[in-house]
Amino acid sequence: MKIISEIIELKEYLKSQKNRVIGFVPTMGALHDGHLSLIHNAKKDCELVVVSIFVNPTQFLEGEDLEKYPKKEKADTKICELAGVDILFLPQADEIYTKDEVRVLAPDIRGFILEGATRPGHFDGVLTVVNKFFNIINPDFAYFGKKDAQQINLISLMVKQLFMSVTIVPVNTVRESDGLAMSSRNVYLSPSQRVDALKISASLYGASKMIGKNILETKKLKNHMREILAPLEIGYVEILNRDFEIVDDVVLGNTIILVEALVGDTRLLDNIWL
Amino acid sequence: MKIISEIIELKEYLKSQKNRVIGFVPTMGALHDGHLSLIHNAKKDCELVVVSIFVNPTQFLEGEDLEKYPKKEKADTKICELAGVDILFLPQADEIYTKDEVRVLAPDIRGFILEGATRPGHFDGVLTVVNKFFNIINPDFAYFGKKDAQQINLISLMVKQLFMSVTIVPVNTVRESDGLAMSSRNVYLSPSQRVDALKISASLYGASKMIGKNILETKKLKNHMREILAPLEIGYVEILNRDFEIVDDVVLGNTIILVEALVGDTRLLDNIWL
Repeated sequence: MKIISEIIELKEYLKSQKNRVIGFVPTMGALHDGHLSLIHNAKKDCELVVVSIFVNPTQFLEGEDLEKYPKKEKADTKICELAGVDILFLPQADEIYTKDEVRVLAPDIRGFILEGATRPGHFDGVLTVVNKFFNIINPDFAYFGKKDAQQINLISLMVKQLFMSVTIVPVNTVRESDGLAMSSRNVYLSPSQRVDALKISASLYGASKMIGKNILETKKLKNHMREILAPLEIGYVEILNRDFEIVDDVVLGNTIILVEALVGDTRLLDNIWL
Repeated sequence: MKIISEIIELKEYLKSQKNRVIGFVPTMGALHDGHLSLIHNAKKDCELVVVSIFVNPTQFLEGEDLEKYPKKEKADTKICELAGVDILFLPQADEIYTKDEVRVLAPDIRGFILEGATRPGHFDGVLTVVNKFFNIINPDFAYFGKKDAQQINLISLMVKQLFMSVTIVPVNTVRESDGLAMSSRNVYLSPSQRVDALKISASLYGASKMIGKNILETKKLKNHMREILAPLEIGYVEILNRDFEIVDDVVLGNTIILVEALVGDTRLLDNIWL
């Protein structure tokens, strides 16, 4: 596995590999089985797999957990090596960003609902850094976890609207055996918070069960989910179509149910794509 | 010459021409000798030259001249054909833009001085459309007139900061025999305004003459220019380095002198790169 931190070195190397199908997995490190699943999918589709680890400062708002975001550089490197990653890209922030920058701005509506409502500017930071990485690496395929559903939606919009040539591949959420969606932020949870956090996936399972009984009204589903989530501070419970518009009824094949809840100080996301 | 209006058709065709050096000249039509010089430069450097004509709505502010912007489709097509353009790209606005869009935002400082100060949002529109075009066409070289110096500065910043792979080529301003910088907006000028407009290039020549006599203090140069420009409504007179920072003294090889003035209702730009 090549470890590269300089952008120019990466660009040069990739130029020499032009005819290979390139898969890209952008991460913020603290790799878990969710990331591993992204890498495995990339390995399956592509001839050359690039993983980046970069804790992107511009997607953290003032007062968020940028400084304490988990860092596990040695373990991450080992995980990538064992997974057969070809290039591990570890750029420095001062190479990615300079002063007085051109930025990519999330769309006025879809960028400022859900996560964007409580974290205004967050997705501008995500889109800007992903845009840079796509331009540096020029991948054929890029892999993102479905857990960050709004992120995938907005990155797909960016690719489509700016006519970028990469194909975005959404990868299923990987869960702990008890249902908790894997997230680098799970390490923040105390043992009792870890138990509380299960209500999040439980609310999604609860909704799924009702849908299995053909209850498709989103109002009823959301009420039921709110009951299950009640002990937690709910950020949002939302049922949307794939274009992130609110719907009255679940349509199988075109619905996403999304939850955000605060467990202690930790904001956790989960969702299911129906 | 191929005339293409569908993005997907252009992308498909360019995919078949992958190994050729591609030059791109984006325009808003109403082509004059300034555009022709861009095309000639592209022909010189490249194996395949793409010219786009697209009057980009997002770079016009409310109340600006979008509707009355000169359109000369037949003449433009003929000019491109005679100049040896390979592909004339004539996209429709509803193919370039959809609803609730991801946008490219000009930098907070350099995007909001000079033109950006009086036309806030103008450069966001320019950068967004140029970003889209670069992604659609994926050119090796793209040609822009030095007359729009701030535009070149910001597009170059975008390319550098977003790590796009195109090389920006600034091309010298083409002037009428009496010195007026060519611009599609010159057609708005009445005969007497056409005479008044000469004060703009005269002010730049005046400054050049002083610099020839080794007067390098920008304060003195700007005062002299303002005297020459006095009968017009001056937008700005500014002397900057290539990074668009204000300087106290002219440094040959790293200075741009910029003027904007209103002649009647027509806002005209000019500059010299020293």
